[in-house]
Amino acid sequence: RIDADRMMKTLHETCEWGFAHRYGSSPFETGMARLTLDENDATARRWLADEAKKIGCSVTVDEMGNMFMVKQGKKGGAPTAMGSHLDTQPTGGRYDGILGVMAGLEALRTIKDHNVETEYPVALINWTNEEGARFPQSIVGSGVWCGDVPLQKAWNLQDVKDGSLTMKSELSKIGFLGDTKCSHKATPLAAHFELHIEQGPILEASGKKVGIVQGGQAYKWFDINVRGRECHTGSTPFDTRSDAMLCASRIIVESNRIAKEQSGLASTGILRLSPGSVNTCPGHVFFTLDVRHPSTDKLAALCKDIEAAAHRIASSESEKGCDVDWVETFNSPAITFHPDCISSVRKAVEANYGADHGVDIYSGAGHDTCSTSKVCPSSMIFITSKDGISHNPREYSSPEDCAIGAQVLMDAALLYDAQ
Amino acid sequence: RIDADRMMKTLHETCEWGFAHRYGSSPFETGMARLTLDENDATARRWLADEAKKIGCSVTVDEMGNMFMVKQGKKGGAPTAMGSHLDTQPTGGRYDGILGVMAGLEALRTIKDHNVETEYPVALINWTNEEGARFPQSIVGSGVWCGDVPLQKAWNLQDVKDGSLTMKSELSKIGFLGDTKCSHKATPLAAHFELHIEQGPILEASGKKVGIVQGGQAYKWFDINVRGRECHTGSTPFDTRSDAMLCASRIIVESNRIAKEQSGLASTGILRLSPGSVNTCPGHVFFTLDVRHPSTDKLAALCKDIEAAAHRIASSESEKGCDVDWVETFNSPAITFHPDCISSVRKAVEANYGADHGVDIYSGAGHDTCSTSKVCPSSMIFITSKDGISHNPREYSSPEDCAIGAQVLMDAALLYDAQ
Ligand SMILES: NC(=O)NCCC(=O)O
Ligand SMILES: NC(=O)NCCC(=O)O
Repeated sequence: RIDADRMMKTLHETCEWGFAHRYGSSPFETGMARLTLDENDATARRWLADEAKKIGCSVTVDEMGNMFMVKQGKKGGAPTAMGSHLDTQPTGGRYDGILGVMAGLEALRTIKDHNVETEYPVALINWTNEEGARFPQSIVGSGVWCGDVPLQKAWNLQDVKDGSLTMKSELSKIGFLGDTKCSHKATPLAAHFELHIEQGPILEASGKKVGIVQGGQAYKWFDINVRGRECHTGSTPFDTRSDAMLCASRIIVESNRIAKEQSGLASTGILRLSPGSVNTCPGHVFFTLDVRHPSTDKLAALCKDIEAAAHRIASSESEKGCDVDWVETFNSPAITFHPDCISSVRKAVEANYGADHGVDIYSGAGHDTCSTSKVCPSSMIFITSKDGISHNPREYSSPEDCAIGAQVLMDAALLYDAQ
Repeated sequence: RIDADRMMKTLHETCEWGFAHRYGSSPFETGMARLTLDENDATARRWLADEAKKIGCSVTVDEMGNMFMVKQGKKGGAPTAMGSHLDTQPTGGRYDGILGVMAGLEALRTIKDHNVETEYPVALINWTNEEGARFPQSIVGSGVWCGDVPLQKAWNLQDVKDGSLTMKSELSKIGFLGDTKCSHKATPLAAHFELHIEQGPILEASGKKVGIVQGGQAYKWFDINVRGRECHTGSTPFDTRSDAMLCASRIIVESNRIAKEQSGLASTGILRLSPGSVNTCPGHVFFTLDVRHPSTDKLAALCKDIEAAAHRIASSESEKGCDVDWVETFNSPAITFHPDCISSVRKAVEANYGADHGVDIYSGAGHDTCSTSKVCPSSMIFITSKDGISHNPREYSSPEDCAIGAQVLMDAALLYDAQ
């Protein structure tokens, strides 16, 4: 059995690197702001490599900074992996991604402590830039690895706050631009399992302890530029304006309305305008749109409808009209996980806690396992997020739930290895 | 008669300091970005003081950096002033404010060239921070001078991009923190005339050449903070969100609708959000609202209605709700200019061009003359803005119209002086 206390102690200790947004007085009542490849991420990565070596793992870093920590088994071949990510949102919590890595490490420590000899190698993976917060594309490290994202495109991603910093320059700066090719061919996996917090309210509402994840919904990201014409806020009649901010606001409100109508989601997380003066109507607004739907086809239709609405609003419902430039920057189709992996997870739940502790569930968020599932059998384990809160400093999962999740993660991997 | 060529040459030459946003290939086809107290503003100010001294003016700089350039008359006493401002919007043009200062300088040069002896002193004034673009409050230098704005409050205004820079620190940095008290008591004026471009489409549509400005509409500025809760864009159902960006967008759209309904204006020129990540709904949005109406009372009612709508939207039309914090940062009631000044302007139009060249008009924008009119007889002269465009690099008024405006400015001041 895993050592739950050791795991939680390790998790909170390593959250010293990047803790932020204190919301209560007890030691762990803070969130995290450990942005991909920043100094805190670098420190956590170095620590993780050291810990993996201590328990006899080899450590391989690829061109995207993905870290593969492999413990040998009786036979050679591709390892069965447990992976997640150490980076967080700017207003992130202590569990999103971090728990998955800590649980994988705890599993390897337990395997070592009990001298368990696996059939094949087992691995822990820390994937680079899962969040897409600092470099605005999510699941990038695993995306390049599975062949979805061209290496150069990923390397060229720019820091949202400072375009002179790219993923490549920052990988190099912190010493994590590895030599190994970033490809599932260079570092093949037999399977990939990921423990994650649900980040939504469904599992909690179900009253069950473990989500046996069947797959994830589709999502697309867009960069939208609205161009109008700067004008004086006091002397320009409404009907002669091309107000980019008013137009962008209308598009945001309408995107939400359409997404609601079609049982999808649409959200704007970044918006910048220019010139930025109280008495000048903005001539330019840039904003992002994140659109999601459980079905790949319905997502495509939803995005089409929102885009058409944006063009209609800009051309005929914004006084003298604005121009809208609409670029898709990211596309992740709906994913169905592998039945063998799902079955390993289900068996691990049943063996440890009984069948009625688990429930089949889908993921609203994207995860590195969505990438890996394109090239190797993969699936995920969810535990409860209190009140469904995530990407927020108050994200919380109980130590008991974290322990259950970690146990299921290890056992699912061992079952898969043994079969 | 004024020397129109000299005036336009001087205007375009001095636009070397701060020109920006080229939109055509001919030399003057650029706008301006000469922000209050920046290096370009400093250079233009030093140049202006030198020019004024060359024609025998005394130069006084007050605690707000307002520059009073006075040419003595036969008798002593308070001067009849011609004033405007040298600062521009970040996407400004070559005429807003600048024309008024250049026309005043041209008037003083003409008076000197022809050895005209005025009854009383005449003055040219460059008022500090009329635009309110860099330090977000408009007509500030003249506002302190007339007693509307406390000196300390004006000094403490922060640069919109860097809160560590204040009006006081930047006045001091460029050497324009004068010794003279900023008060109409320390530097009294007999009257204040201002030539300005209309910045709107009304004069052009009227087919007349000169707007005889009767007064200006009321306006208020607000700082609005919307606070919600950061959440994951993919795993958080709409009905459990407190999305500050969606809430702010709804408020902006609704403020526009209400203002339209009540024949006023409402505009958002600045918006900032946090944390700024594609897949995190913003927990905080800050934005400005600029609301205008010809009537002071109707403006108050309009602002109340918009504020009530904002609170309603935030509390009951934004899913789980957001908090709205609403602060009035600026208030300028509707202004009626002085009949004696208006009459001087009307006579100057009639004498030079005939009565049918002039038309009574109201100002949609605020001007330094709105401040001066609170403590001394004041009025304004408008010339046409091509297509009503202002606060935009393409702002344009023809050399002919600029010349007409400058002639009327000088003659109105001389008529007032002589009466
Ligand atoms: N799990 C998670 O927060 N992933 C970030 C990618 C996404 O936006 O869904
Ligand atoms: N004339 C002008 O642009 N003034 C700025 C003050 C205002 O916002 O009306």
